[in-house]
Amino acid sequence: MILDKVNSPEDLKKLSVEEMNTLADEMRELIIKKVNTTGGHMGPNLGIIEATVAMHYVFNSPVDKIVFDVSHQCYPHKILTGRKEGFTDPDKYHKYTGYTAPEESEHDIFKVGHTSTSVSLAAGLAKARDLKGEKSNVIALIGDGSLSGGEAFEGLDNAADLNSNIIVVVNDNDMSIAENHGGLYRNLKELRETKGKAECNFFKSLGFDYLYVDEGNNIEKLIEAFQKVKDTNHPVVVHLHTIKGHGLAAAEDNKEAFHWILPGTLDEKPSVPSVQTEDYNSVTNEFIMRKAKENPSLVVVNPATPGVHGFTPDFREKMGKQYTDVGIAEEHAVAYCSALAKAGAKPVLAIMTSFVQRTYDQLSQDLCLNNSPVTMLVYWGGLSSGDATHLGSFDIPLISNIPNIVYLAPTNKEEYLAMLEYSYSQNEHPVAIRVPNVPLVSTGVEDKTDYSILNKFKVEEKGSKVAILGLGNFFSLAKEVKQEIKQKLNIDATLINPRFMTGVDEELLENLKKDHDIVITLEDGVIDGGFGEKITRFYGNSNMKVLNFGGKKEFTDRVPIDELYRRYHLTKELITDDVKNCL
Amino acid sequence: MILDKVNSPEDLKKLSVEEMNTLADEMRELIIKKVNTTGGHMGPNLGIIEATVAMHYVFNSPVDKIVFDVSHQCYPHKILTGRKEGFTDPDKYHKYTGYTAPEESEHDIFKVGHTSTSVSLAAGLAKARDLKGEKSNVIALIGDGSLSGGEAFEGLDNAADLNSNIIVVVNDNDMSIAENHGGLYRNLKELRETKGKAECNFFKSLGFDYLYVDEGNNIEKLIEAFQKVKDTNHPVVVHLHTIKGHGLAAAEDNKEAFHWILPGTLDEKPSVPSVQTEDYNSVTNEFIMRKAKENPSLVVVNPATPGVHGFTPDFREKMGKQYTDVGIAEEHAVAYCSALAKAGAKPVLAIMTSFVQRTYDQLSQDLCLNNSPVTMLVYWGGLSSGDATHLGSFDIPLISNIPNIVYLAPTNKEEYLAMLEYSYSQNEHPVAIRVPNVPLVSTGVEDKTDYSILNKFKVEEKGSKVAILGLGNFFSLAKEVKQEIKQKLNIDATLINPRFMTGVDEELLENLKKDHDIVITLEDGVIDGGFGEKITRFYGNSNMKVLNFGGKKEFTDRVPIDELYRRYHLTKELITDDVKNCL
Repeated sequence: MILDKVNSPEDLKKLSVEEMNTLADEMRELIIKKVNTTGGHMGPNLGIIEATVAMHYVFNSPVDKIVFDVSHQCYPHKILTGRKEGFTDPDKYHKYTGYTAPEESEHDIFKVGHTSTSVSLAAGLAKARDLKGEKSNVIALIGDGSLSGGEAFEGLDNAADLNSNIIVVVNDNDMSIAENHGGLYRNLKELRETKGKAECNFFKSLGFDYLYVDEGNNIEKLIEAFQKVKDTNHPVVVHLHTIKGHGLAAAEDNKEAFHWILPGTLDEKPSVPSVQTEDYNSVTNEFIMRKAKENPSLVVVNPATPGVHGFTPDFREKMGKQYTDVGIAEEHAVAYCSALAKAGAKPVLAIMTSFVQRTYDQLSQDLCLNNSPVTMLVYWGGLSSGDATHLGSFDIPLISNIPNIVYLAPTNKEEYLAMLEYSYSQNEHPVAIRVPNVPLVSTGVEDKTDYSILNKFKVEEKGSKVAILGLGNFFSLAKEVKQEIKQKLNIDATLINPRFMTGVDEELLENLKKDHDIVITLEDGVIDGGFGEKITRFYGNSNMKVLNFGGKKEFTDRVPIDELYRRYHLTKELITDDVKNCL
Repeated sequence: MILDKVNSPEDLKKLSVEEMNTLADEMRELIIKKVNTTGGHMGPNLGIIEATVAMHYVFNSPVDKIVFDVSHQCYPHKILTGRKEGFTDPDKYHKYTGYTAPEESEHDIFKVGHTSTSVSLAAGLAKARDLKGEKSNVIALIGDGSLSGGEAFEGLDNAADLNSNIIVVVNDNDMSIAENHGGLYRNLKELRETKGKAECNFFKSLGFDYLYVDEGNNIEKLIEAFQKVKDTNHPVVVHLHTIKGHGLAAAEDNKEAFHWILPGTLDEKPSVPSVQTEDYNSVTNEFIMRKAKENPSLVVVNPATPGVHGFTPDFREKMGKQYTDVGIAEEHAVAYCSALAKAGAKPVLAIMTSFVQRTYDQLSQDLCLNNSPVTMLVYWGGLSSGDATHLGSFDIPLISNIPNIVYLAPTNKEEYLAMLEYSYSQNEHPVAIRVPNVPLVSTGVEDKTDYSILNKFKVEEKGSKVAILGLGNFFSLAKEVKQEIKQKLNIDATLINPRFMTGVDEELLENLKKDHDIVITLEDGVIDGGFGEKITRFYGNSNMKVLNFGGKKEFTDRVPIDELYRRYHLTKELITDDVKNCL
């Protein structure tokens, strides 16, 4: 294998183009095998192998600095920068993260997992270089999908003003996670079709010099292009036309499905339609379809993550004009929904917890200050064993401390449906619902709660001495804790399902004072600024003891969930011990 | 006066162009007089009078909908839509807000005060219109300065895809609050210089049809242009070349100074240099200048609000390459600073509380996850009598619940300088400092605290029974409360200056348990998710009573500060009463 000789970018520079082509094939095979084993980003990595080889051949990392946008296309880079064992040795498949990670290598500058940040980051590196009088190339590698994010535009607009070396490599495979959306993509298409010659050019309009590479998977052509721009003294865009999933037929043919795959995807036999299991996505999407038929002004808005929500191509087609993928543009999505609601339409915004973070100001100003009745569905909220870049544990502090919005935490299917119905039919407030991130629970009994009576907690089982507030995902843990407390402490605890995260049920909390000494709160997210602290504050001037359970304010990185639960005392045994110590 | 006949846009439609010109002159005079009396946005409003008259002449508001970006240019619109008394009658100068306000008029669709949102909002209105099968024109009016904000780009990119009526009127006066920054502005310049004929056109690259109006302050030409695009069936940009401050020589000549003016600015005699009073801005800027001379890699980064920070044209010139105005691009500003710090430069980011809201995800992902040693100075934090769109009371929950960052609240000049020095010289964490939003206090004694020992609160006066934690701006209130408690309750309370907002001093809080029964926290911001709740949580399992004082989670709109203080029990008397009731 050629790869045996390559342990760093330096080794690459000794290879011929022919050898590099062979190397690219070897890398492709390794990536396919590894990703098919562990799951991960397939299409983005296969499309960028040649460009990565060419970049490391031409530039001198880490003196020259390459910033990977969103960095889910960094596997070839990792292979070439001393981490190939993560791809050659199945025992080490999990050793390296799926994103750039400075703790792994000096060739990774930033920990990155959200899109559209690379140009801003590269601009900062370039400015620092200039201030310090150093010499180097600074390269941002950004996909066409990421260009729709506002931060990318802000970065480009500013980078163009640097009057110094900065190279923005646009990896244009004509895809986001799903298809692209936005006027910009017509210009990219025109540029591809004219081989970069179209007069009207988005990048030039921002002041960039511009170079087009039609064969973005051809190492020789790529080397030629990168050599042209190396050591440039001004901002330049190198626009690569690449093929997402390059070299793997299944991935080239099914670009959306192969953006990120589950383990074993390539091994599966032609699938016979399996029995559809009901889950919170299917419940959501059935609700949406039903309402959409009744009301032509219902519209689902999603910022480029249809797969997360089960918005399959079939679902999207059926929804037609009532489905809007705004591209990676979360800020726009929130403002857009606010206006839709103000004009009497019925927007349903589906968004991941990790990406709702991009919209604080829009939630505050565009949505909540205007009190627009938008339904916002927040997915994947909760502590997780995920990558530090995609944690879903900060949404409660983020959302629930903004005025006017109602943030709900259902604990079963029937509650969730009732909350959806409430949100959909009211015109008073923005309503966000944290879609349960646990297997579906059904009580079989319709929930007839009137959720327009805000901040009304539900007493599920009345007891005394200890009250357990089990929020959303953690309601089942609360039930376990109740049993454990009964068993170990012989106390019949009161079990409460708060349902509302944006306020407290003062009457209920007041009543608890009569025959309870301890209240415990359980929330599936960081405690700081979250739900439990509101309860604690309520009892601040009383004799009630309050224990808040949830995550610590920290970025965790691929820590097994059981370990996190132990660390945060989120097991029935540890909680019961803490209660015992407090009695 | 022509204006006597105009009470709504309908009345306008009966006028001749000549009469409208006279009307514009009358409006100009009223705006100059009113703004010079009350203070407010002068330049933006003077530049847009003619376009507003022409828009209301051609379009049929409120059926046709006009969305004002940032809306600090809505005074002419207010005059024409039934609110002229707010400009003709000095007694009613304060009756209407300086921003669009749906509660005032059906011609105002949104409450808006942050930039770059208008196109997204207009796109939502247009989409709702189409879903409901209605007919109308939807117009976004956006200034060139606002175009640098990422949300504006996201909006444009999506609006271009609507395949339906949406008209984006670009009010290009070649200025932001200060001068513009970004590559985009070279394209706007080229478009102005070629009368809109340049082939490379930012708006066209996004898929918009495009119309250029060179005389953007000529009502006749404007009417002609708007008539051309009225009832268009596709997205179109109307690019107006206007003059900021049009018709007021002082404003035309001093565009930055007259963007927003203090009352009486026009009345003042040619100023003799007054004695410079020391304030937190001057202290900051002296510190910066001193460090910048020592270290060429110190760089001040500011998103387009130099006036807020006292970054005068003179200061900016002296700083040279060590000052970067990134334009209205807060997201970029944070990521850019993170990269500057990673590359060993010394970025100092100056940003207003209200606008730091636009950067939650960048603070989390680009800055804190990467633990980059940026110094972020947060201005104008605290409860205020300001407009609902510019409140500074949400920053503590926003910033202090993100991991890794250190958020500091100085209470006097010496502390502030020591914190600046600490932040500047360390390389461990992002550090944010809430620049005091109160008159400067100086102890005259150098603060030698080692702030690298995190979360160490300072006991200013040791007492017993009651401990008062007075954070930042509210430290002086805490001192008053201590006196009041002594006087009314004969208790020598302990007075504590927490200084850190991102964590608690567990040792100190633990010690207080020995001889204290009540802890009270005072913070100048909303309580929800803020500093006080962290203290309350700490004491949750103890007998300590804790009372949290601060703002309620609500949007307040120009409520006098004294009224807010009474509402929230933020006076020494009310706090002492609450303490008494708790004893």
